[in-house]
Amino acid sequence: MSLVVIGTMAFDALETPFGKVDRIIGGSATYVAWSASNFTQPIKQVSIIGGDFPQEELDALAARGVAFDGVDVIKDGKSFFWSGRYHMDMNTRDTLVTDLNVLAQFNPQLPDSYQDCEFLMLGNVVPAIQLDVIKQLKNRPKLVVMDTMNFWMETAMDDLKKVLAEVDVLMVNDSEARQLSEEYSLVKAAARIQAMGPKYIIIKKGEHGALLFHGSKAFFAPALPLEDVFDPTGAGDTFAGGFIGHIARTKDISFENMKRGIIVGSAMASFCVEKFGPNRLKELTMEEINGRINEFVDLVQFDIQL
Amino acid sequence: MSLVVIGTMAFDALETPFGKVDRIIGGSATYVAWSASNFTQPIKQVSIIGGDFPQEELDALAARGVAFDGVDVIKDGKSFFWSGRYHMDMNTRDTLVTDLNVLAQFNPQLPDSYQDCEFLMLGNVVPAIQLDVIKQLKNRPKLVVMDTMNFWMETAMDDLKKVLAEVDVLMVNDSEARQLSEEYSLVKAAARIQAMGPKYIIIKKGEHGALLFHGSKAFFAPALPLEDVFDPTGAGDTFAGGFIGHIARTKDISFENMKRGIIVGSAMASFCVEKFGPNRLKELTMEEINGRINEFVDLVQFDIQL
Repeated sequence: MSLVVIGTMAFDALETPFGKVDRIIGGSATYVAWSASNFTQPIKQVSIIGGDFPQEELDALAARGVAFDGVDVIKDGKSFFWSGRYHMDMNTRDTLVTDLNVLAQFNPQLPDSYQDCEFLMLGNVVPAIQLDVIKQLKNRPKLVVMDTMNFWMETAMDDLKKVLAEVDVLMVNDSEARQLSEEYSLVKAAARIQAMGPKYIIIKKGEHGALLFHGSKAFFAPALPLEDVFDPTGAGDTFAGGFIGHIARTKDISFENMKRGIIVGSAMASFCVEKFGPNRLKELTMEEINGRINEFVDLVQFDIQL
Repeated sequence: MSLVVIGTMAFDALETPFGKVDRIIGGSATYVAWSASNFTQPIKQVSIIGGDFPQEELDALAARGVAFDGVDVIKDGKSFFWSGRYHMDMNTRDTLVTDLNVLAQFNPQLPDSYQDCEFLMLGNVVPAIQLDVIKQLKNRPKLVVMDTMNFWMETAMDDLKKVLAEVDVLMVNDSEARQLSEEYSLVKAAARIQAMGPKYIIIKKGEHGALLFHGSKAFFAPALPLEDVFDPTGAGDTFAGGFIGHIARTKDISFENMKRGIIVGSAMASFCVEKFGPNRLKELTMEEINGRINEFVDLVQFDIQL
């Protein structure tokens, strides 16, 4: 049984108030894999890369139990490239360049070896492809988690709604939740999105933490207050990887366990922002991760007698 | 022994996306008193009002154990008036009118009956007056809590720094903490402000909750996700009232108990925004308050085994 992750494997160029990097490994599936592989293996990637994607990056992920049978390699093509500049508040950014490159021909065919998929993480790609991957699986996974973005709400809402009807957990940020639901209140937004399909809504608020809604239940996890946020790129995908990695490790899809998954995801995201790209994730130890999770416990725990 | 509260008692005109009210009771000391009086009595107000301030409002507060010996009444003057319009996000607002009226001649002289002050809440007024009130007390209170705003950072920074050196707890919002400390990171901002005097920093983030910093320790309390925020006016002062009310009731100024105070303050603030002005606070029962506090416990509690 395995975790299957669909998403991009790419190059980024990043500029933050603290520095600049012209070419670094990125992509949603890359971050999810680096994060989730601390908790569960194997992880089976579904993506597309050009001949320029470094073999040593694939080897490093393979050493963490990540498989690439479902990754198309276009030898004479170039990998997806994104370039962005962050503002001082690190919550807002300008996209400078988006070169789809090989991503324009992404049409994944799941290998047979992926049919043991127990947990499916649908990273942010064209909704039609997310739906197609779901349909290719002969057995419905135990849990399907979906990420998406405002761009698809504006350009592919019909397809997006079809995917929503098939998934268990939707992860979006607060402005995306508002746009999708046409409700300003996040409580109302979550209720309306649940009516579209997913019974669990995770709303990511960056430095302001994350909310989980399910029926009338809500859970809130803060972001760790950090001395410095060096580079927020990939924090959302790293959060997703920590969440689904924890769920896959425990095989427990209850609300209570999703709360723990969100704490694990928040801890992983708090590491991600400490260095450029996935660099911090590559060097993490389980001891550091558990220490960080304990900081979350300390940050929110209180004892009140009424 | 008593809680002494300095602040405004005023009229507001409010406009939110959900409605409009031309004249309603407001002022920081009013909100603090309505909130804190659920937990501690007596509360001794230090303020100034005009002859237009309604006797029935004073009577309603008096019935909750609020004393007015330290409130100057200028019979032929008009009470402080503020008018504002909130934007859709309810976190930002435009000030339409600020009529200082009698507040321009505010020069409080503490009556002898206030010398039993055990807890002092310095609402947001001119720093020189905050300092003067501290100096008038013959015995140093057990805890001095201070609210302030960006306006004083721009116009009276020297006086503000003198007050900071005398207080235990500073309550500000995130942008004020950044402005005061000249640090973007709230962790660094809190460290720098602690070096200015207050050993406890509470950073209010509105719908994103509140942070408490003390030395290297941090605590985070979320705001309750609400279906509707009707009118945010007074939410910060109501939070302050719940905090200091809880501290005064328990007489425990430890970090652990301040965490509880922040939860109580957050619960009170979540009621405040449900109706215009202090209307919701006036009708609250202790049962409702305890129920709301329990919602906070449910919202953040999780159990993780490493």
